[in-house]
Amino acid sequence: MEVCRTIVELRQAIARRRAAGRVVLVPTMGALHRGHGTLIEEGRDLAGNDGVLVVSIFVNPTQFGEGEDFEDYPRDLERDGQMCDELGVDLIFAPQAKEMYAGDHSIRVRENSVSQHLCGESRPGHFSGVCTVVAKLFNIVQPDIAVFGKKDAQQLAIIRRMVRDLNFPVEIVGVETVREFDGLAMSSRNAYLDSDHREQAPLIREALATAEELFFKGETRASILIGVAEKIISQIDDSRIDYIKVVDADSFQPLERITDDALMAVAVFVGDTRLIDNVELPINECMDAAHVGSVVDELV
Amino acid sequence: MEVCRTIVELRQAIARRRAAGRVVLVPTMGALHRGHGTLIEEGRDLAGNDGVLVVSIFVNPTQFGEGEDFEDYPRDLERDGQMCDELGVDLIFAPQAKEMYAGDHSIRVRENSVSQHLCGESRPGHFSGVCTVVAKLFNIVQPDIAVFGKKDAQQLAIIRRMVRDLNFPVEIVGVETVREFDGLAMSSRNAYLDSDHREQAPLIREALATAEELFFKGETRASILIGVAEKIISQIDDSRIDYIKVVDADSFQPLERITDDALMAVAVFVGDTRLIDNVELPINECMDAAHVGSVVDELV
Repeated sequence: MEVCRTIVELRQAIARRRAAGRVVLVPTMGALHRGHGTLIEEGRDLAGNDGVLVVSIFVNPTQFGEGEDFEDYPRDLERDGQMCDELGVDLIFAPQAKEMYAGDHSIRVRENSVSQHLCGESRPGHFSGVCTVVAKLFNIVQPDIAVFGKKDAQQLAIIRRMVRDLNFPVEIVGVETVREFDGLAMSSRNAYLDSDHREQAPLIREALATAEELFFKGETRASILIGVAEKIISQIDDSRIDYIKVVDADSFQPLERITDDALMAVAVFVGDTRLIDNVELPINECMDAAHVGSVVDELV
Repeated sequence: MEVCRTIVELRQAIARRRAAGRVVLVPTMGALHRGHGTLIEEGRDLAGNDGVLVVSIFVNPTQFGEGEDFEDYPRDLERDGQMCDELGVDLIFAPQAKEMYAGDHSIRVRENSVSQHLCGESRPGHFSGVCTVVAKLFNIVQPDIAVFGKKDAQQLAIIRRMVRDLNFPVEIVGVETVREFDGLAMSSRNAYLDSDHREQAPLIREALATAEELFFKGETRASILIGVAEKIISQIDDSRIDYIKVVDADSFQPLERITDDALMAVAVFVGDTRLIDNVELPINECMDAAHVGSVVDELV
């Protein structure tokens, strides 16, 4: 495994190996956990023995807003490097911010539809920061395939949109969210939680799972699903719901009633820590909506 | 020569030829004239015998504003095709708008600094339309080199910025403006001019050349250079100056006094036709500014 700090170094390292097979990129902000591990394993599978697996580790300043946790975001390149090595990564790209952004950097890639909702509303500029850095990484690495986690469902949808609309010759692969033993979605930010909050945080997953169950039984009204989930999340001490929405799975437009594949997505501040999670609500798993009344009476 | 109408077709055609040598792209909106001819000849030289020369012909709707000439913009694919064939083009990419933009296209590439001035001020959204389509063309064609004209000096500077800031693996080559026998910069829009306006339009070039001469003789005050040029342009019947500015050659920030490489850029409505032109003012060609007073007295 080789660690590259500059763009030139990385491009040369990839060029030397490219002829052999496909190039696969797993973009991360480091502080790698088992969730990233799954992305990397998927990347290794996709690259095969002949391909090149690149993991980028870069805490991208342009996707953090004022007052967010850019400074505090956990960084541990040594540990990340060990994990990558164990998982068969070929190249780590770990640039400094000044390698990625000129002092007078002036280009932004913006998505103007999917990003209008959820995290896009709560974190202005976040997704244009994400699109900009991912466009840069795509041009730097020129991967055949890039792997992203489904925990950041909106990010994944926006990246897919960027690839389609700017014709990046990159295949995007989404990987299922990995969870702790108690259901909490893996996140580098879980490290911020104190022990009480850590203990209660799995209620976020429980809330989504309960809404999912209701949906499977035929409930398609967003207000009912959201009400049930809110009630469960509100049991977490010092919690504040940033958003909880049922949205169309493609456009991320909030829905009042589910008539096509949807997603319930939530962002919750637990103390000062903002956690996100989501659950897919595929329309073909929903029972006939005629049963709705009785199901709700029974469960709520 | 092969004409490709779809992205898939073009990518396959390039892939078949890529191994042989470098891929060179000349992006145009068609209605090709001798100015484009020079870009294409330069492209052929850069591609060499083994490389692939691609000319794109696409009147890009997203770079035209409300009330601009998108509908009327001249289109003549047959004539363009003949010219490309004669100049040794390998592939023409001439897509329909729906091949380039999905109905729910939602991604824009924006430049936020160089584009704040001149045409960026006069034509809101123009340069983000240009950046977006050029980013798409770069991803579709994946050229090693792309060739642009210096008549659109600000566009060239913005494309260079985009390539730098998004790390496109593309070398940008700028080609000198080609002029009619009487000095008028070649433009597809010259076809809009009636015969009186066509006769007077070279005064735009004369204005820039006079300012250039003054600058060479030591005049570095923008207001003086602009005043001289304005006076000449105002002789054109039915003309209205959209802008005339002396700007820094890199940042395009308007200058009061020239202390580094600069550019005088002008946009003039001649009747309803908007014409642009510019002249480089390289600081090392400027005589000692101490002579300013006498030069101005003599010439103004």
